[in-house]
Amino acid sequence: MRQRHKPWADDFIAEHEDIFIANPNKQKGNWSDVFGNDHPIHLEIGTGKGQFIIGMAKQYPDVNFIGLEVSKSVIVNAGEKLLHEGLPNVKLILADANLLLDYFQQNEISELYLNFSDPWPKNRHAKRRLTYHTFLKQYEEILRPHKSVIFKTDNRTLFEYSLVSMSQFGMRLDDITLDLHELCDETNVKTEYEEKFSEKGQPIYRVKARF
Amino acid sequence: MRQRHKPWADDFIAEHEDIFIANPNKQKGNWSDVFGNDHPIHLEIGTGKGQFIIGMAKQYPDVNFIGLEVSKSVIVNAGEKLLHEGLPNVKLILADANLLLDYFQQNEISELYLNFSDPWPKNRHAKRRLTYHTFLKQYEEILRPHKSVIFKTDNRTLFEYSLVSMSQFGMRLDDITLDLHELCDETNVKTEYEEKFSEKGQPIYRVKARF
Repeated sequence: MRQRHKPWADDFIAEHEDIFIANPNKQKGNWSDVFGNDHPIHLEIGTGKGQFIIGMAKQYPDVNFIGLEVSKSVIVNAGEKLLHEGLPNVKLILADANLLLDYFQQNEISELYLNFSDPWPKNRHAKRRLTYHTFLKQYEEILRPHKSVIFKTDNRTLFEYSLVSMSQFGMRLDDITLDLHELCDETNVKTEYEEKFSEKGQPIYRVKARF
Repeated sequence: MRQRHKPWADDFIAEHEDIFIANPNKQKGNWSDVFGNDHPIHLEIGTGKGQFIIGMAKQYPDVNFIGLEVSKSVIVNAGEKLLHEGLPNVKLILADANLLLDYFQQNEISELYLNFSDPWPKNRHAKRRLTYHTFLKQYEEILRPHKSVIFKTDNRTLFEYSLVSMSQFGMRLDDITLDLHELCDETNVKTEYEEKFSEKGQPIYRVKARF
């Protein structure tokens, strides 16, 4: 997603250190302290404008949510929404998904979400896809045993790739739907993208998988 | 597929014992002798009217094909086509997929096809689906190591079910496509159903998986 440069973003992030956790590597192993409770911690990689994680946080007040996003000009949108909602169980980190092991200790995360991740359609970019085996290896490390990765996308090719990548990695696929909204799952929280794509009638794919 | 009763079917089958192999349990371990060569043997479960297996047999003359079908009034259609084509590398068996271990020895089959299998949509009929774990267990037994099960269907729910069932059984998914005909795989041989459904623009799903 291409975003305008937002010159106010740095100041906004610095002013809201209760929402944007600076230096997430310093919190490795201490995320329960950041939230001030020992509720399970769910992580979304590529939080974008935050609609999903904020919707989830409202639906599950006894779960702590961390939204990781690499784009500064996008994460501030999530921050603005969060400021408006005043939810204590969401924190945002401006960070790189390649460095998860710097931010989280083994077994620190209880569920991991990937929503509408960049498909990186060219084969030579396959290693940037968030379901490439090097990412799966990191997820396996930080996820508690038997906990799930939940991946949603509208991109058919990325979904096909991801199912195979997960399976080859040795993950067990627990649940697959090839048309999420026809399923009418009342508990499903939609992302901004998801809302747009499903309004157009495009199928949304979802897989839940475990290591 | 509901078919008219065909009173001539018994005679037709008996008259063409070179095509319809009677008492397949007597050939267990001896299928190479039936074909008179030691080419690899591929098995289609639910051969229907035979378009797929006959197309495959033309495309791969150095492979032996066995088509298993439980419906007498359907398998005679395949027999008629085969009689017309005169292909030495296809045999048909009127038999029950529940009894594969009676017909084939361990490692006797080199590839296994499931095409547009009955979806058995009711949960209480799940055990009749050809990707239910009891069937997978039989396939594992008769397939040579590292050889594939290749499953095609237009039924989304059956496909979702089958991917999960295979994964839970411990199979590795090697290749998945959620719209086979958009992929333009020139080597794909269509079944009668597949031709009809893809002409309507419905997606055809395919998975290749190994034990």
